[in-house]
Amino acid sequence: MLVYKSNQKRRLKSSVNWTACIPLAAIIGVFWVYAATAQTPAPTPEPLTPDKVQENVAALKVGLDTIWVVIASFLVFFMNAGFALVESGFCRRKNAVNILTKNLIVFAIATIAYWAIGFGFMYGDSGGNTFIGLKGFFLSGADNSPATLDAYKGDFPGLSWTGVPLEAKFLFQLVFAGTAATIVSGAVAERIKFVSFLIFSFLLVGISYSITGHWIWGGGWLSKVGFFDFAGSTVVHSAGGWAALIGAAILGARHGRYGEDGKNRAIPGHSMSLATLGCLILWLGWFGFNPGSTMAADGRLISHIALTTNMGASAGGIAATIVAWFYLGKPDLSMIVNGILAGLVSVTASCAWITLPSSIIIGAIGGIIVVFAVGFFDSLKIDDPVGATSVHLVCGIWGTLAVGLFAVGQTADIGGGYILQAGAGPKAGLFFGGGFDQVVAQLIGIASVGGFTVAFSFIAWYVISLITGGIRVEPEEEFKGLDISEHGMEAYSGFSKESE
Amino acid sequence: MLVYKSNQKRRLKSSVNWTACIPLAAIIGVFWVYAATAQTPAPTPEPLTPDKVQENVAALKVGLDTIWVVIASFLVFFMNAGFALVESGFCRRKNAVNILTKNLIVFAIATIAYWAIGFGFMYGDSGGNTFIGLKGFFLSGADNSPATLDAYKGDFPGLSWTGVPLEAKFLFQLVFAGTAATIVSGAVAERIKFVSFLIFSFLLVGISYSITGHWIWGGGWLSKVGFFDFAGSTVVHSAGGWAALIGAAILGARHGRYGEDGKNRAIPGHSMSLATLGCLILWLGWFGFNPGSTMAADGRLISHIALTTNMGASAGGIAATIVAWFYLGKPDLSMIVNGILAGLVSVTASCAWITLPSSIIIGAIGGIIVVFAVGFFDSLKIDDPVGATSVHLVCGIWGTLAVGLFAVGQTADIGGGYILQAGAGPKAGLFFGGGFDQVVAQLIGIASVGGFTVAFSFIAWYVISLITGGIRVEPEEEFKGLDISEHGMEAYSGFSKESE
Amino acid sequence: MLVYKSNQKRRLKSSVNWTACIPLAAIIGVFWVYAATAQTPAPTPEPLTPDKVQENVAALKVGLDTIWVVIASFLVFFMNAGFALVESGFCRRKNAVNILTKNLIVFAIATIAYWAIGFGFMYGDSGGNTFIGLKGFFLSGADNSPATLDAYKGDFPGLSWTGVPLEAKFLFQLVFAGTAATIVSGAVAERIKFVSFLIFSFLLVGISYSITGHWIWGGGWLSKVGFFDFAGSTVVHSAGGWAALIGAAILGARHGRYGEDGKNRAIPGHSMSLATLGCLILWLGWFGFNPGSTMAADGRLISHIALTTNMGASAGGIAATIVAWFYLGKPDLSMIVNGILAGLVSVTASCAWITLPSSIIIGAIGGIIVVFAVGFFDSLKIDDPVGATSVHLVCGIWGTLAVGLFAVGQTADIGGGYILQAGAGPKAGLFFGGGFDQVVAQLIGIASVGGFTVAFSFIAWYVISLITGGIRVEPEEEFKGLDISEHGMEAYSGFSKESE
Repeated sequence: MLVYKSNQKRRLKSSVNWTACIPLAAIIGVFWVYAATAQTPAPTPEPLTPDKVQENVAALKVGLDTIWVVIASFLVFFMNAGFALVESGFCRRKNAVNILTKNLIVFAIATIAYWAIGFGFMYGDSGGNTFIGLKGFFLSGADNSPATLDAYKGDFPGLSWTGVPLEAKFLFQLVFAGTAATIVSGAVAERIKFVSFLIFSFLLVGISYSITGHWIWGGGWLSKVGFFDFAGSTVVHSAGGWAALIGAAILGARHGRYGEDGKNRAIPGHSMSLATLGCLILWLGWFGFNPGSTMAADGRLISHIALTTNMGASAGGIAATIVAWFYLGKPDLSMIVNGILAGLVSVTASCAWITLPSSIIIGAIGGIIVVFAVGFFDSLKIDDPVGATSVHLVCGIWGTLAVGLFAVGQTADIGGGYILQAGAGPKAGLFFGGGFDQVVAQLIGIASVGGFTVAFSFIAWYVISLITGGIRVEPEEEFKGLDISEHGMEAYSGFSKESE
Repeated sequence: MLVYKSNQKRRLKSSVNWTACIPLAAIIGVFWVYAATAQTPAPTPEPLTPDKVQENVAALKVGLDTIWVVIASFLVFFMNAGFALVESGFCRRKNAVNILTKNLIVFAIATIAYWAIGFGFMYGDSGGNTFIGLKGFFLSGADNSPATLDAYKGDFPGLSWTGVPLEAKFLFQLVFAGTAATIVSGAVAERIKFVSFLIFSFLLVGISYSITGHWIWGGGWLSKVGFFDFAGSTVVHSAGGWAALIGAAILGARHGRYGEDGKNRAIPGHSMSLATLGCLILWLGWFGFNPGSTMAADGRLISHIALTTNMGASAGGIAATIVAWFYLGKPDLSMIVNGILAGLVSVTASCAWITLPSSIIIGAIGGIIVVFAVGFFDSLKIDDPVGATSVHLVCGIWGTLAVGLFAVGQTADIGGGYILQAGAGPKAGLFFGGGFDQVVAQLIGIASVGGFTVAFSFIAWYVISLITGGIRVEPEEEFKGLDISEHGMEAYSGFSKESE
Repeated sequence: MLVYKSNQKRRLKSSVNWTACIPLAAIIGVFWVYAATAQTPAPTPEPLTPDKVQENVAALKVGLDTIWVVIASFLVFFMNAGFALVESGFCRRKNAVNILTKNLIVFAIATIAYWAIGFGFMYGDSGGNTFIGLKGFFLSGADNSPATLDAYKGDFPGLSWTGVPLEAKFLFQLVFAGTAATIVSGAVAERIKFVSFLIFSFLLVGISYSITGHWIWGGGWLSKVGFFDFAGSTVVHSAGGWAALIGAAILGARHGRYGEDGKNRAIPGHSMSLATLGCLILWLGWFGFNPGSTMAADGRLISHIALTTNMGASAGGIAATIVAWFYLGKPDLSMIVNGILAGLVSVTASCAWITLPSSIIIGAIGGIIVVFAVGFFDSLKIDDPVGATSVHLVCGIWGTLAVGLFAVGQTADIGGGYILQAGAGPKAGLFFGGGFDQVVAQLIGIASVGGFTVAFSFIAWYVISLITGGIRVEPEEEFKGLDISEHGMEAYSGFSKESE
């Protein structure tokens, strides 16, 4: 207590050093300038014609479409917070700083990677090939490679060219690309080297994600075989999921996860409140992810997609609750979180082309699958601390396939007499009288994106391992926790630790 | 440390099992398909007429209105996160998982309940009665029960039919319905059986909320007696609050809350940071809740409502701070949180029909009331761990009544010379020269919704008690905490516990 | 355990007291009223002319602009949560309630201060002087001081008068004003008296911020000398930063921060997860802060600003990561958080007038500066627990200056052939061929706002010190923590404390 005694007295004294700043205030007077500003005269209005008014209407429509795309981008951006919380909440206290740092910086890296190369690969003019875009790097293609403007309309037949500015579309695509990298973050948590993860994120976003994305949304070959993925069950989620799986498999399990005896020992996460908040933020973000993929303020389509998205999440959450209750004996919160996310991933590919009851079925199946997928990967001793592989890979595949099963077809009623996208979108699915055509197209897409991403990830992790001297931290570092070893700090100062 | 030794070496080896995946990559070539896609020829434009252009303007207006409703819905949806954080933050660590789980799954349940039956009861064609809607279940009524379309315009005279699609309106109404259930969650926290709560939520949203909602917003009898509730002080908050009160009363207090000696012993919550974040999320969500209730992108009305909402919150927070400071001796954070929420609830009914100074008065009174209401319920030994009853029920009633006191009337200036809704809305309130007419109408609404909800809740809790063998967990479970007993997990692994 | 025994039995009994409520339900019948509501006859449509349709287009444009401004306001409002989390996360557990309370109530205080006086000072009719507005207090000026309407168009040449309603503009300006106060909160944390902070916030928002804001955005003298600040690097950030600096300097360092030996001893924050979430919320909020400052739904401009904002944040984060890694030896999470915020502050002034590569450079320099600024203030023994001064003051100055260096000029291509604001905005910057003109104008603004704010803050803190008997808590209170001494509660009940 004694040390405080003079502190109180020094308070005013300490400010004396700063009084020197006061004279600055006097400077103000010196710059007091009265200058008249020129008034722009009001232009004389021309007589209006219907064509002129229609021009204003068109400009307004572009403004409205852009506002929608931009706001949807913000919502998807916010998913970074959701992933950060779910992933750190599901991991241990001693690795919290590491996971948070990864999730914070990964979007910054994705921004640079996607701006410099990814967007060009994904939506740039390919010069006739259907594998990869080759222009528009550094977002430079706007005026000298018209195909950039053209190709990145995306391949949603029936959605007319929206006129949304290039930069708005880039922003929306960027936040999607960022999502792919965050999926990996969870699966490799608690044992990967920080620098190895950063390099992989750059490569995944800049190269692999963008190439397979080109196939589907950039006018590439998969779009030409009739493969459909509205908002990215494959483009984003299963692509990120495959990369996550390979990462988790190469890294090996966390120490102690599968004991000497081979028994599965769950490692509880350090904050269920963070994880739950993260789940709700992701749910919110998905309202940008799916409805935003319309890329235009089409009210009826946006409303329908918002509802199928919400139905998928709800059904996934309820299904996972029930399954966990029966299968694990308790309504396990982490399973419910993953069930909701599973439902969301599952409806992502089909959300614009299915009825509400279908979205409930698709979401519920996703919520059931995810519980068993977690068990399945454990049986393979592939240690995914947050279940990212089960959620994004397995349900991403399921969701992509669901287009082939549940799509109502290009001229059918989507509910209440609406035909949302006349003459556009996938063919009717198997359960809606369309036979196996669309199923086959979907399987082609699932396999090819999977194959490419797996191969790419293998090579990338291997190369990175050479560069960074292995991709896994030392055992002692893992034991101490990555927060101390990688970042030199702890997440929760002032809270005493539970002995492990 | 020894156990780690071979782990490092196994890292690359462990990946060998997965090299089998690589051949998948080869599959890509097989599906390499070059197919030309048909180009849609540009349609020859017809000559434009003013009527044709006006059609485009109208379509654009529907688009804009829908975007607004949808975005407002997202904000209200996010309130689920706010409630989850406020409620769990105000409760004990040992029950955190339970409360988070309730708040996470309750919206999923509300989604199904409101889709299957609630929306039909609330906005469906009633066939002439003014008590309950009878069509539009499973959102099926769009084409065969025109009154669904008609009735759910809501009963805000002066707001013209907006043309917002049915599914957008359903989404907006759904997120409101979900709110009602989350209110109950807080009041019954720390001792209710998980399954009992889930069933009650389903019934509240699907039946009681929707029926009383029909009376007010669905064209039912209360709307015909001149009762007004713009955004739900009664429809949502006091209805949820009555259900919460009955639940808390039936359950009885948490063990130790009112000691053997009858003394009130406060049980501190486990995370003020979660509670504060939750409060700010709720404040944000309210910007969707109140301004979104315009159901149309009416800029002037939306701006005014956003301001009255914000004034109410601010005044409520400041008033509660001051009152708590004088009355409790300290500026108690939990009181400030509840003061802000109280201010928000208080202006919800009247936000579109009052001046800014009125909104400050209404919010401030709400912030004062809530501090004393917390004390009042404690004196009755009704244990509401988070103060939900004080906030939502008491201030919901106050806010509803405030319409009768502060409404400017249908032709009066709302500030700055605006007449926001000429010829529409409630009559002038008592303090604005309108006499007691509107006060009486408001009292009728408060009493009737209260009476119905109380009766319904009693019956519902009783029936649920029979089904689930009582609605309260066993004393040992309560002592251990619901996280372990109901969910088999803890919220904060790695943090050592404070001895109680 | 024994105490529980009768509790279970009393459960149903306890409800008996409440059965008295049931009769209320009977009341419903009494009020059962069937009243026919008058039907409004559909108006006969007039024949449409292009002028009439154009009027509808104009109304729609105002609606769209307003929606954008309102939604941007909501995003900026949410920054309150971001500041609350970053600041409390970076401080100690024992002061968490205090910081949260400050950040929660400060926006309520800002609301009242800015409504009552600030907005009038900032945007009210000045009657010819260029120093301060003198009408429009209590938002009353809408009809009797037309200049209120006129002046607060802001001074963004090239942005035509948008027609957004007064109340929407007030809302947007209010959330900005609130930000300035929260900046101070962080720098003075862990030792300021709660009441002293509240009074200072009121004065800062109501008077100082609004006066200097008038100079720049309210049509005052700085706008006439050609000073430009698009979204507030100076108006908001450096103004708040100067006030923060003076507060921190006058208060003196926290006990133990600079030991007896004068050595710098870092005091770790209590929750990196809160701080990280806060950073992501602030990043999200900045998408309202910068793009919203268009005050109109100009899609192309908004998209560009959203991108420059995001580039600045990303570059700042990456630069701070690298610098911290080399300079401090580890990728320090708190430095990354501050690097991102530094990048955001740095591009705020120029975001509408620079190319994407420039935004990367500006943000990266911000991220570098902030690391060294933190060290610099430590060397001066000015203790800023969260680095607010480094982020908001230093980078606010840098960002303001950057306009003079990187602005493309009024007729130049901003990327991809766009001229975003033909004939408007700042002159070309030094690096874009414009010479020193704009640099000089920016320096005038930086110095004059700095000088005024420093002088004002000195006086304000001094007067407050007289009123509240010093502005710093007693040493024992600081030692115990402000949560107990100022609020009588702790933030984390149930978590045992780490011995210090």
